[in-house]
Amino acid sequence: MRVIILGSAAGGGVPQWNCGCEHCRDARARGASRTQSSVALSADGERWILLNASPDVGAQLAARRVLWPRNARGTPVRAVVLTDGEIDHTLGLALLREGPAPLPVYAPSGVAALLDEPWPLVRLLRAYAGVEPRLLPEGQAVALADLAGTPLGISCTAVAVAHHPPRYAPAARAGSFAVGLRLVDERGGRALAYIPTAGAVDDAVRRIAAGSDLLLFDGTFWSDGELRAAGVAAPTAREMGHLPVGGAGGSATLLPRLGAKRTVLVHINNTNPILRRGGPERAEVEAAGLTVGEDGMEFEL
Amino acid sequence: MRVIILGSAAGGGVPQWNCGCEHCRDARARGASRTQSSVALSADGERWILLNASPDVGAQLAARRVLWPRNARGTPVRAVVLTDGEIDHTLGLALLREGPAPLPVYAPSGVAALLDEPWPLVRLLRAYAGVEPRLLPEGQAVALADLAGTPLGISCTAVAVAHHPPRYAPAARAGSFAVGLRLVDERGGRALAYIPTAGAVDDAVRRIAAGSDLLLFDGTFWSDGELRAAGVAAPTAREMGHLPVGGAGGSATLLPRLGAKRTVLVHINNTNPILRRGGPERAEVEAAGLTVGEDGMEFEL
Repeated sequence: MRVIILGSAAGGGVPQWNCGCEHCRDARARGASRTQSSVALSADGERWILLNASPDVGAQLAARRVLWPRNARGTPVRAVVLTDGEIDHTLGLALLREGPAPLPVYAPSGVAALLDEPWPLVRLLRAYAGVEPRLLPEGQAVALADLAGTPLGISCTAVAVAHHPPRYAPAARAGSFAVGLRLVDERGGRALAYIPTAGAVDDAVRRIAAGSDLLLFDGTFWSDGELRAAGVAAPTAREMGHLPVGGAGGSATLLPRLGAKRTVLVHINNTNPILRRGGPERAEVEAAGLTVGEDGMEFEL
Repeated sequence: MRVIILGSAAGGGVPQWNCGCEHCRDARARGASRTQSSVALSADGERWILLNASPDVGAQLAARRVLWPRNARGTPVRAVVLTDGEIDHTLGLALLREGPAPLPVYAPSGVAALLDEPWPLVRLLRAYAGVEPRLLPEGQAVALADLAGTPLGISCTAVAVAHHPPRYAPAARAGSFAVGLRLVDERGGRALAYIPTAGAVDDAVRRIAAGSDLLLFDGTFWSDGELRAAGVAAPTAREMGHLPVGGAGGSATLLPRLGAKRTVLVHINNTNPILRRGGPERAEVEAAGLTVGEDGMEFEL
């Protein structure tokens, strides 16, 4: 199974258009950027699955030769799996609307409901090539397949993780808004655990991550009050449903105990000090055996 | 008045994710790209107005120093003006949602209606910093202003131009779906005519463009059957509401007669042969006195 981190940043990316923090200023000055959260994986290196559809999907696909079209119109992307309904994980569907064929989009029921109402993205896209919504049942392995139903060689189990609904979700809405995924190569049995947003390292996370060959985990914030410290009137990391990486009870302490062969932080917010090479927070993460994810990182499981 | 072409491409950009045409292949091989249609302008070089909100707005703002935030959170972007409701001219609003303050968004009534239903983007964004919708009345000069109502030094007159509603618009919907803009520097009297999509060079276009210092005009397609020739099952350019650049009655023949001091083609589709440097179509356009727009082109009017 091949895995590529297409985008390693949280919503807004790095630099974020309206942010003048040290990391965003540095990224602008260097002309460097981290794009918004998405991963590509493939069992055969030919047919690819996107995990989440980033607003940066156009640039992300252009940057990886294996994701280029092989003919006049077409794409090696065969399906998309959504872990939540956040704008930064779903907006890319609107950018993949030209087809040539409807794109199978797997999502848990709570997320599918959000993309019907209040944000009718799926209906909007019917005027174009459209998407084919497919339900991702909870806790049950599904063989991911292309539009024709041909299996892509990867089974996917979604487990609800602690997280908050998107800000645009109606307050009264119930349902699971965020899942983690365990993706298993049906031939080799290698497992990718993908949990880009999580409010805790709990039983759900353990179930997804235990014994995986690669765990990609929520690295949004280093500390609970990070956004406020950056001068933004905002909730805390925990209030937003993100377990901080640093400090007592942070993921840097908890993740190494999960037994994943390798753990890489993704969905990193522009304010997170682990972005600073040579900084103490990054050193702490690396000393714990974790890797700070980068756009374009590739893994062969 | 300063004018920057932020994005010179039509929807999808160049390369387009699913397109294997010669121009997209070339762009991928060179690591070059044209981003999707948008323009920035400013009367004072400090406070900026975006004409259309491209899905690539994040990268577009990061690429221009004058559009960087000046402090911890903020932006020199003071307002957005929409010329139509196409996904590629409006999706960027979702990417500008973090604030710190609501963004004034000027739009003609037909476009404002589309962003309420069937595509409730404005409602969705209320959960974030939100936008402040402002009506762009037809044929009447409006002094563009920031959120506090302070004039930005530019007056804007919108005139409905021949074009088709977006594909997602309900068939029965009436109203003006596309306008051209005449933007006048209130101090110097210099005029920018901005018509990124137009099905004809008619009285409406003449009214906007006559005597302007700069005309940015629809350069989507070279020929009517261009998409089909590229192997795509698609309507013709005229059926999509775009006057082709080439051939008898094409814009390359008609635009030079409008009396604009300078005319630049924008909103260029990836299939358009004017993208090929040294090609005969580009030579024809240049011989007619027109310029092929590029990302990052700047003009001081």
